[in-house]
Amino acid sequence: MDSRSGSAPAPFTADDHRARMARATGAAASAGLAGLLVAPGPDLVYLTGYRPTAETERLTLLVLAPGRDPVLVVPALEAPDAERAAGAAALTLRDWTDGIDPYALTAPLLDPEGRYGISDNAWSMHLLGLQQRLPGTSYAALTQALPMLRAVKDAAELARLEAAGAAADEAYRQILGVRFAGRRETDVAADLAALLKQTGHSQVDFTVVGSGPNGANPHHEAGDRVIERGDMVVLDFGGLKHGYGSDTSRTVHVGEPTPEERRVHDVVREAQQAGVEAVRPGATCQDVDRAARSVIDAAGHGAYFIHRTGHGIGVTTHEPPYMIEGEELPLVPGMCFSVEPGIYLPGRFGVRIEDIVTVTEDGRGRRLNTTPRELALVD
Amino acid sequence: MDSRSGSAPAPFTADDHRARMARATGAAASAGLAGLLVAPGPDLVYLTGYRPTAETERLTLLVLAPGRDPVLVVPALEAPDAERAAGAAALTLRDWTDGIDPYALTAPLLDPEGRYGISDNAWSMHLLGLQQRLPGTSYAALTQALPMLRAVKDAAELARLEAAGAAADEAYRQILGVRFAGRRETDVAADLAALLKQTGHSQVDFTVVGSGPNGANPHHEAGDRVIERGDMVVLDFGGLKHGYGSDTSRTVHVGEPTPEERRVHDVVREAQQAGVEAVRPGATCQDVDRAARSVIDAAGHGAYFIHRTGHGIGVTTHEPPYMIEGEELPLVPGMCFSVEPGIYLPGRFGVRIEDIVTVTEDGRGRRLNTTPRELALVD
Repeated sequence: MDSRSGSAPAPFTADDHRARMARATGAAASAGLAGLLVAPGPDLVYLTGYRPTAETERLTLLVLAPGRDPVLVVPALEAPDAERAAGAAALTLRDWTDGIDPYALTAPLLDPEGRYGISDNAWSMHLLGLQQRLPGTSYAALTQALPMLRAVKDAAELARLEAAGAAADEAYRQILGVRFAGRRETDVAADLAALLKQTGHSQVDFTVVGSGPNGANPHHEAGDRVIERGDMVVLDFGGLKHGYGSDTSRTVHVGEPTPEERRVHDVVREAQQAGVEAVRPGATCQDVDRAARSVIDAAGHGAYFIHRTGHGIGVTTHEPPYMIEGEELPLVPGMCFSVEPGIYLPGRFGVRIEDIVTVTEDGRGRRLNTTPRELALVD
Repeated sequence: MDSRSGSAPAPFTADDHRARMARATGAAASAGLAGLLVAPGPDLVYLTGYRPTAETERLTLLVLAPGRDPVLVVPALEAPDAERAAGAAALTLRDWTDGIDPYALTAPLLDPEGRYGISDNAWSMHLLGLQQRLPGTSYAALTQALPMLRAVKDAAELARLEAAGAAADEAYRQILGVRFAGRRETDVAADLAALLKQTGHSQVDFTVVGSGPNGANPHHEAGDRVIERGDMVVLDFGGLKHGYGSDTSRTVHVGEPTPEERRVHDVVREAQQAGVEAVRPGATCQDVDRAARSVIDAAGHGAYFIHRTGHGIGVTTHEPPYMIEGEELPLVPGMCFSVEPGIYLPGRFGVRIEDIVTVTEDGRGRRLNTTPRELALVD
């Protein structure tokens, strides 16, 4: 099935972006901030629709402050691109040419004694430039100050995430039909990438194929190892479709698994189920992690679950909120994040099962990935 | 010609990286810094050979300090990848797992009263984490504190830049033979990208095709505009080959140019020549800019040369030093940078001519791009 023929969603409008910027500015004020400083990256895409063609050392910065219109500081060379962004009509462009000090240009937009939230990924060079120019200002990382900024998705965003999830699921169904044994991990990864494109992804972010012992390294991507009969194979893949992310993992087996392999897979499946069942409004992020982790702990594999249980997803495939011990942020309807416990037995094999889950109004979590979680056997 | 068959240069070794880290640490000490904090990106690639598969919010940071061995703080999940980096044997890995505060882990590696150079592109989130944990520390952007860190290339690096330049030149020679009139800019851009790949580039960074009025926007990439007979077309393309960058621009004309078009092109060509002739050890970066700019000013087009004259190139296609008014950094043998003046007549057309130039020991600049700079006519 080629999902590219499916109708594209209506693009976001300047009004959508105006509303997002107003909501963000309000949240900043409620958090006691004088405003927000947003650098190129997912926050800027979300708020303005603007994505510079390249991230360079030249300062591009959206300044949001209560009672003032949004201002986008932008290099003059890039102003024509910025003017074409969906949200451009909802903000004022302030362009600067090479040779000007962009921090001097930005300083009058800030309260010299104010505390600002600044994009996590804003370049340190720019933060240092502002700190030097305005020594009375202080700063907080945006995801710490406003972890919820992009976390709660509206209906238009949720529809995009659902479509991305369905597309990734279709890619999974089709990958079950390809040959695994005797081919390199990179070959299967290339198949996965092609399937993600075929199902309408504009961008492939990752195609993990971790066979046998490589599956025990959760950040292994795909290598030259030739997949053999008897291998467990962790598949973890996703990307962007219509600007929103997909991310799903399934672990398959080439031929018949051993009883131990089945047992470990069952534990991860139960852990993942427990994690999803812990999702409800008012529960905290760490509750989801604890629910999944306790199943793996109880089975005696706790030492081999070496990462957090999940991460948010939206205009990126990897963002707050994080399902991790110590994260007491409460879950809110509209949040979307992964639930992806795993067990990694060094030198032997790994198992991971991952769905994107959204918090619904009716008090439950709903999976956006719906392919079977039973251990699939491949050839 | 397919240059991919050319023999690949010998990979950099742990000793190469050890020497680079030692040189950087010594330069930091000379600059009065307690050390350097290097985030993922070109500085880290240069110093350690390590390039994380993805840049995430998880802290990865190289700590260089006089009298101490280099330490790379790295998320546990990514430690296996870091261990495979060419420079891994020349440093100590300090890994951290989710749930640990990575700034608490990093703090003991720093002098609590020290001043550090930190990568320009280090995430603000990480800088804020360190500033909060160690309020007595202070920081300077690495390219401001040590603008020369990667600027002077050694022989092995220069050989790579020469090979990348020769490959881009071959792509230019071949693009002159394709059809321009009646095709979209994006079609010609795709041809350029394919040629860059064919000539051995592992990564294509940009393929600008600015036809007619689009050429007057120096940051236009390539769009749906159909190129017509009578158009000036700015071509600006490059990428990475064997880890080092290429970047060259030529402006071509579809069919016969008008006398005015020729005149403007001649001015830019003379300006570029003047810029290259200003390159010599001991001259400053701004001297190169002034030399090129004065030709364009004298011709009455000064208002239409709206960007700096050049930028460094190395493991990236865009880095210090910058050839710009106010940059008094002296040129040193081994530096490599672009000389790329342009004239942009809004709504009409643009002209840019760009070569990478290296400062030689014998007191001159030498072009690494050597294709003719005369206005080429295409079909």
